[in-house]
Amino acid sequence: MNKTRTSIVDIAHAAGVSKSTVSLVLQGSPLVNEKTREKVNALIGDLGYVYNRGAANLRQSKSKIIGIVVNDLTNSFFAELAVGMDMMVQSAGYVQFLAHSGESVDRQREVISSMRENGIAGLILSPARGTEASDIKPLADSGIPVVLVVRNVPGAKVSTLLSDNYVGAKAAIRHLISLGHSRIAFMGGFVDTAVFGERLRGYRDALAEANIPLNEKFVIHSAPSRAGGVAAVERMMVFAERPTSALCLNDAVAFGVCDGLRSSNIEPGKGFGIIGFDDVIEAKTAVPALTTVSVDPQGMGQRAAQLVLKQINAGQTDPESIVTSVRLVVRQSCGAPVKQLEELA
Amino acid sequence: MNKTRTSIVDIAHAAGVSKSTVSLVLQGSPLVNEKTREKVNALIGDLGYVYNRGAANLRQSKSKIIGIVVNDLTNSFFAELAVGMDMMVQSAGYVQFLAHSGESVDRQREVISSMRENGIAGLILSPARGTEASDIKPLADSGIPVVLVVRNVPGAKVSTLLSDNYVGAKAAIRHLISLGHSRIAFMGGFVDTAVFGERLRGYRDALAEANIPLNEKFVIHSAPSRAGGVAAVERMMVFAERPTSALCLNDAVAFGVCDGLRSSNIEPGKGFGIIGFDDVIEAKTAVPALTTVSVDPQGMGQRAAQLVLKQINAGQTDPESIVTSVRLVVRQSCGAPVKQLEELA
Repeated sequence: MNKTRTSIVDIAHAAGVSKSTVSLVLQGSPLVNEKTREKVNALIGDLGYVYNRGAANLRQSKSKIIGIVVNDLTNSFFAELAVGMDMMVQSAGYVQFLAHSGESVDRQREVISSMRENGIAGLILSPARGTEASDIKPLADSGIPVVLVVRNVPGAKVSTLLSDNYVGAKAAIRHLISLGHSRIAFMGGFVDTAVFGERLRGYRDALAEANIPLNEKFVIHSAPSRAGGVAAVERMMVFAERPTSALCLNDAVAFGVCDGLRSSNIEPGKGFGIIGFDDVIEAKTAVPALTTVSVDPQGMGQRAAQLVLKQINAGQTDPESIVTSVRLVVRQSCGAPVKQLEELA
Repeated sequence: MNKTRTSIVDIAHAAGVSKSTVSLVLQGSPLVNEKTREKVNALIGDLGYVYNRGAANLRQSKSKIIGIVVNDLTNSFFAELAVGMDMMVQSAGYVQFLAHSGESVDRQREVISSMRENGIAGLILSPARGTEASDIKPLADSGIPVVLVVRNVPGAKVSTLLSDNYVGAKAAIRHLISLGHSRIAFMGGFVDTAVFGERLRGYRDALAEANIPLNEKFVIHSAPSRAGGVAAVERMMVFAERPTSALCLNDAVAFGVCDGLRSSNIEPGKGFGIIGFDDVIEAKTAVPALTTVSVDPQGMGQRAAQLVLKQINAGQTDPESIVTSVRLVVRQSCGAPVKQLEELA
């Protein structure tokens, strides 16, 4: 069974009126008399007519579709970001193409090109690692509003919505120092993302202002995932002099660090202080509850969608750069002052 | 800057050829001579022409868009499911509208209606709690192929792709019994989803076949989330006679149960046996690594996409019901035989 779509012509035929009359009814025009309107509306329900927005978009050369490309939906942070965008896009009467690039620049290029063929009005992109300005240029040149979210792409002349990574990392390190920590690691992440660079800079500067010398070994690179957190701890365990705490690139790494510590019989939050970055939903219910720099992923997704919608409505794509503020949420994962930690060790 | 889209007419004008010639070049026709072809192709690149698939879809009345509605993207299981669908949809040359219903039937209705207006060729739906057959009927009646995934909706005459929840739950309980457990709880979930019902039935039947009387108190309802797992443990802790192990509705609940046990100073996997359901990515790296019934969410997403694509291509929507097999993956979270647990307690 493969029915063809009910058209205005079918409705007009069944009602014994002209196609234009059906159009007027659909537009709520007062030119149609009450009786005809009722008859047409009843048939629209009975025959299952669905407004063809694709055709309307073409007539108006105006699409009601937003493209969203996210680098990794399996990381809760990005899933929550997508949920925030979804909420705002839908409530504005738009619908979204939403794709996952899996950190592949090639895949990202393919999905964006496919979205453009299908006529998006704007694009929100949380770029894959290694995205370059030249990947974004054709889009920007076409006049489609583009908002980069979470990760910046240097040289791309489009709007950006980023969180204040530098300030957040600095606040986290200052907190660890205030608890008496001086052997503080930075765990997770690779050098080729702007987010990593900014958070690392906050880490370095906060150590410097407290006159704590930087131990390069304590910057432990690993995948920005839960598995990466486990791997970072494994690496740390062979150090002769070990750190007593860590700022993690994100909450996923922080949860992995907790897992890794437990595998080494160190109790996270008691034998070792941990701070995450993001504040995903489970940071609150985890044991120990995670101290983290809150980025409010859903709120960030909503703001990104608002920005692209604003640009679509205004018909302009002059780049805007927004930096959203972050705040340190202190919970249990770096609870005890370091003196107590040393007594427990 | 808001440029209008480059059209075939613009290309034809710049090349000094007819619109039909440009069309022929786009279709790779051998009727156009080499020199003209090269000239037209160069201009297509220079002027940034993008094929208008919306218009092509209308001409062919055939869309290359799949609608996907998922009940909760913030649960890793559903995020991984979406990633699997995305993979298959993109590689088939389609693009997807992907929306999150947040378990709201109203929101689900709105996004599906918006997707239909924008012309989807098929729909994959992981239904929100409380979805009824009447919610799906208009879609099924319209001839658009619909695949329900993960959760069934009784009475909906559309295709389904479900995992073998009954067999999976039974295997999990048999494993706990083989380790010597007889006080086994079922944690997480609400009665109004089919998934809960099927897994609970597997739990009951496995206990019955081992002649272990069912203790109704041991079926502990809670949200199907990490927070729900914590809540279930809190409820369990006040029991006079407590279970020694639990099958959890899903991995998210199982991780929450681990968190809750730790809050009560019980070591998960040592002082209490835990089995999850789903096998999300982090089940493997968690500490203790989670014993779980593997559903292979990404693989399931891929199969759901294959099924809807098959139906679109075949132009038929005769409902098919597929049940995917599951397997118990034994890791550390219910490692020790119960005798050892009792000695530790």
